[in-house]
Amino acid sequence: MARRPGVSGMSAGEAWLGAASPVFRRRLTVEWGQCDPAGIVFHPRYFEFFDWNCVLLLEAALGLRERAWRAELGYGGIPVVDLSSRFTAQVRYGDEVEIASGVTRLGRSSLEIRHELRAPAGLAVQAAQTRVWCAWDANGRLVSAPIPERLREALTHG
Amino acid sequence: MARRPGVSGMSAGEAWLGAASPVFRRRLTVEWGQCDPAGIVFHPRYFEFFDWNCVLLLEAALGLRERAWRAELGYGGIPVVDLSSRFTAQVRYGDEVEIASGVTRLGRSSLEIRHELRAPAGLAVQAAQTRVWCAWDANGRLVSAPIPERLREALTHG
Amino acid sequence: MARRPGVSGMSAGEAWLGAASPVFRRRLTVEWGQCDPAGIVFHPRYFEFFDWNCVLLLEAALGLRERAWRAELGYGGIPVVDLSSRFTAQVRYGDEVEIASGVTRLGRSSLEIRHELRAPAGLAVQAAQTRVWCAWDANGRLVSAPIPERLREALTHG
Amino acid sequence: MARRPGVSGMSAGEAWLGAASPVFRRRLTVEWGQCDPAGIVFHPRYFEFFDWNCVLLLEAALGLRERAWRAELGYGGIPVVDLSSRFTAQVRYGDEVEIASGVTRLGRSSLEIRHELRAPAGLAVQAAQTRVWCAWDANGRLVSAPIPERLREALTHG
Repeated sequence: MARRPGVSGMSAGEAWLGAASPVFRRRLTVEWGQCDPAGIVFHPRYFEFFDWNCVLLLEAALGLRERAWRAELGYGGIPVVDLSSRFTAQVRYGDEVEIASGVTRLGRSSLEIRHELRAPAGLAVQAAQTRVWCAWDANGRLVSAPIPERLREALTHG
Repeated sequence: MARRPGVSGMSAGEAWLGAASPVFRRRLTVEWGQCDPAGIVFHPRYFEFFDWNCVLLLEAALGLRERAWRAELGYGGIPVVDLSSRFTAQVRYGDEVEIASGVTRLGRSSLEIRHELRAPAGLAVQAAQTRVWCAWDANGRLVSAPIPERLREALTHG
Repeated sequence: MARRPGVSGMSAGEAWLGAASPVFRRRLTVEWGQCDPAGIVFHPRYFEFFDWNCVLLLEAALGLRERAWRAELGYGGIPVVDLSSRFTAQVRYGDEVEIASGVTRLGRSSLEIRHELRAPAGLAVQAAQTRVWCAWDANGRLVSAPIPERLREALTHG
Repeated sequence: MARRPGVSGMSAGEAWLGAASPVFRRRLTVEWGQCDPAGIVFHPRYFEFFDWNCVLLLEAALGLRERAWRAELGYGGIPVVDLSSRFTAQVRYGDEVEIASGVTRLGRSSLEIRHELRAPAGLAVQAAQTRVWCAWDANGRLVSAPIPERLREALTHG
């Protein structure tokens, strides 16, 4: 399908990543310090990659840097409440990989984001995160809040 | 239930952690650099905690430091192939937590390890990892291998 | 010299660590995920160890957890402004090391903290950090502030 | 001075970064997980940035990916033996920064690499690393070795 004009790194969804939203893609090279003594990515590092892809995906969909979300959208945070992941191939130091991320479910406050990491040899890691859109309450605590219409719109009709 | 004599940090299993193996417990204080700008643990750090608890659990069960596993057990590595996790409470900078880990399933080469992290306010994170016992083959590649009897024995009749 | 009673992990100073303050010691085992594909500690991890030792040293000297410093001492933060480090031996996965830390200079707002990491084979890493005691100003910015008398007292006559 | 043709991200040296070698530049956005509860970069993360810039600088100078260095140059590793750093401004979550790195001294086996990180508000971090070119000896240990002529050439007449 056609690449969405004007949104860097976004394209129409793929099967597992869902048709519900555009897909954000980022390429990176696996760094020395991200690998363990076996010479492969230390698996918690994948969740650093996916966490940042989530921010980049929502920024691209909204056309708005995250630091502006608080003022514009009442944003407080979007913590992960559930996560599952499969590791089907090892990724080695120096490998060039691509991480594709899309929103696959939009609830009232929660959303599911899926990520696929492909190495030169093919699909290596899949992960699904459930995250909750939160605002700050009067006591400075994060509480769940409805996903703003502007974000919902961007993700569904983007 | 009674604490197993002679194995530091190990005790008999709990419900979700499984009756199949002893449970390894470790206490730690959440460090400044493990938290994000919201003042809570950056979630990939939990997987660093759990990864290390897995090594400590198996070391305690075997009574053998991991660096001796290669010579004694033909060990190459024990990569994670599947992981799922739930985050039910936020853990803050400076919190003292306890991580309990147990083996809940023993296959031919694979095993499931479950982890529970408790913060002062109660259960905060649960995770289940499926890992595969691997040896090095003649070409220097990690390949799955049967779990050594000595480890199987230690985990089931430990 | 005699161990200070009542302050866990603190002892009188050594030469390079300075006579000016008690010395805080912490033992740790180098984790798999802290090492790189050469099987040795990825050097930025040393600065995580030293950063946390700094907090533990000041907490032990004050007899006060860091989260209480804000209320009791007007504390905002203690950023590093200068750092130097020497690496004289490699530290490997699984090594048990000891990190000793002491305050070697106390200025009006700044202090120097030195760290020594010893591996089984001997001294491996030395580091000196200059840090600045800071408070929050009315605009929510960190600004340097005089080191509180209580901390100065604890570090010099501790 | 003119940008070197054909070497992505390299330009002629600046004062502190030295005239002795081309300068490698990389832009990055500070990620959420790289910041601490004060909302600024957790300082060990800077050393992850600089470590990777060192690899990228040498790869660009040589026109050769690091994974080819072993076969082509007898490379074993290039550990840091000495490091100093100054932090003159805070860098915040979401800041876009540029890291410029150059070789400022070439010894027989050792080299000094300097790094400058600039944030939107100006210079924020400077660091100098002394590193030693190493090969593997017959016993599988890293030992210092002369810097290969090809690298010396690339860095001095590049």
